[in-house]
Amino acid sequence: MNVTIKDVAKKANVAPSTVSRVIADNPRISKETKERVWKAMEELGYYPNAIARSLASKVTNTLGLIMPRSTEEAFSNPFFPEVMRGISVVAHREKYDLLLSTSGNQEEEKEAVINMVKGKRVDGIILLSSRTTDELIPWLRDEKFPFVVIGKPLDAKGVYWVDNDNIGASKLATNYLIKHGHREIAFISGSLEYVVSLDRLDGYKLALEENGIPFKRELVEQDEFSEDGGYRAMMRILEREKPTAVVVTDDVMAFGVIRAAIDKGYRVPEDISIVGFNNIPLSAFANPPLTTIDISTFDLGIKSAELLIARLKQKDVDTDHIIVPVKLVERKSCVAR
Amino acid sequence: MNVTIKDVAKKANVAPSTVSRVIADNPRISKETKERVWKAMEELGYYPNAIARSLASKVTNTLGLIMPRSTEEAFSNPFFPEVMRGISVVAHREKYDLLLSTSGNQEEEKEAVINMVKGKRVDGIILLSSRTTDELIPWLRDEKFPFVVIGKPLDAKGVYWVDNDNIGASKLATNYLIKHGHREIAFISGSLEYVVSLDRLDGYKLALEENGIPFKRELVEQDEFSEDGGYRAMMRILEREKPTAVVVTDDVMAFGVIRAAIDKGYRVPEDISIVGFNNIPLSAFANPPLTTIDISTFDLGIKSAELLIARLKQKDVDTDHIIVPVKLVERKSCVAR
Repeated sequence: MNVTIKDVAKKANVAPSTVSRVIADNPRISKETKERVWKAMEELGYYPNAIARSLASKVTNTLGLIMPRSTEEAFSNPFFPEVMRGISVVAHREKYDLLLSTSGNQEEEKEAVINMVKGKRVDGIILLSSRTTDELIPWLRDEKFPFVVIGKPLDAKGVYWVDNDNIGASKLATNYLIKHGHREIAFISGSLEYVVSLDRLDGYKLALEENGIPFKRELVEQDEFSEDGGYRAMMRILEREKPTAVVVTDDVMAFGVIRAAIDKGYRVPEDISIVGFNNIPLSAFANPPLTTIDISTFDLGIKSAELLIARLKQKDVDTDHIIVPVKLVERKSCVAR
Repeated sequence: MNVTIKDVAKKANVAPSTVSRVIADNPRISKETKERVWKAMEELGYYPNAIARSLASKVTNTLGLIMPRSTEEAFSNPFFPEVMRGISVVAHREKYDLLLSTSGNQEEEKEAVINMVKGKRVDGIILLSSRTTDELIPWLRDEKFPFVVIGKPLDAKGVYWVDNDNIGASKLATNYLIKHGHREIAFISGSLEYVVSLDRLDGYKLALEENGIPFKRELVEQDEFSEDGGYRAMMRILEREKPTAVVVTDDVMAFGVIRAAIDKGYRVPEDISIVGFNNIPLSAFANPPLTTIDISTFDLGIKSAELLIARLKQKDVDTDHIIVPVKLVERKSCVAR
């Protein structure tokens, strides 16, 4: 038997139109009446329409996730599923669902966020990395809508964020190669429109500087976060330089870098040593097994969701950012010179 | 400046209460008035509250995704991100968002689906694989709620589904090994509560039978879809048998199978040949590079979303299922005996 609004009205001893008004959260209905109507709905097993209920309670128990690239591209690199795994664990524990908008570019991404916020479809938003050109961050800040960014924004004022120490992480990778006798060290990253790429380039430069090694622009390349992207970037470097080592800020790109080196007749690691980033599960199975910076991707997800939910629950959040530690995982893609 | 309901009412030349009724989709408001009010909202840049709008239109432009395991576990295996990549491409093209419920077990999963359906939070649902014990499929069918299953259900009557020919795919893998002279072939899969595991076990048995090779229960094991799961299953087999080859229905499990074989002093492929399933991107980089059945994971995602959206748009769908082809990708994890 289907329970209708009329049954609820009868049970709560109000007019059917009052039930409708309660659903629409009409401010002229008293709090007491609202509670009586909701109770009647529950007792009758009138499945609370989540949309109507969230219209009333203004709570959706849903977190919005915004990818920095096309959703298709994001799912191609194991970094994002791993961040999402971390977010999922916390969301599940705290009983939140996840709403993924499927945008293809920055403009659609902004539209998606406006739709989520203005449409009251989510309680808070996690931005899965920050771009230098990002209009979303100031927009969300001005709206005073709860959000957390994975990746320190260029202008972090008034923004909650979770990140590694990217400058330090990149120095760690570069110093490791310098200590193993390398001086011609290339640096391959994603686009410099991502703050993380800029920071890691800075860390690389700092490590060179502190060791008295001159910085050479010709040893630096950017491309997309894919195996092909890494391949293309390495090919461009090998056409003009002969590095003995490469820092690659993404393991999947590093697989492409290895392929490019081999295609050009080099051996890895005998001729060219490689340090990756992210420590994706399968980097241990690469050939050679990849030495890489473990950025605790899973923890980035965990911490971002925890920080956001703490804000939503108006718990005392005593910090506006969390730094997740990194470590170097030594495998077999580097040799001393 | 904030646009209010009053501004909309003035523009549409109706009373403010009429605007509220339009938002609540009151049946006593004429279609003409509704359209006039919606037009005024649009012209004034009154951000249509998605919840109110969906309450009115009964359309959410959102697809629900239900994982068959805990969301955390699902994101650990590259199969699911790849299916989701396919779903994302179609969702983006057709302007749908994706709602992921973060369940941890079958009971929570069912609760999540009821919440999505009864709460009118999604227009349709994709179940990301079917279990023999699944109560969700008959429930959704009885509710007449649009859904598509990735993975042929045990009882497929009245259900829309997308899958490979799993029996055929498993025969293909097993026959490949038989043609290379193997007769002691082990079979490792995920739990037999998944229909896909049952079907692939059948395919393996059929291939043996057609080639006059007796089936040995001792050569068959199941475990979870992880590297550790594969490792444990292979260890159990190696304690009692000496297979010269293994069919493993998941590449990530296959990496664990390789590790177990090596830990027990065997060489891969010289002593034990291995065929995986899924052709995850990094199986090409495994050591040795993995021979595997490419099940077109991305296409499974594409086709499931297309089939669901076609149903939602009430297009003529001339079939209730789509079979996505498979192929064997030959790499270096098998040798002839």
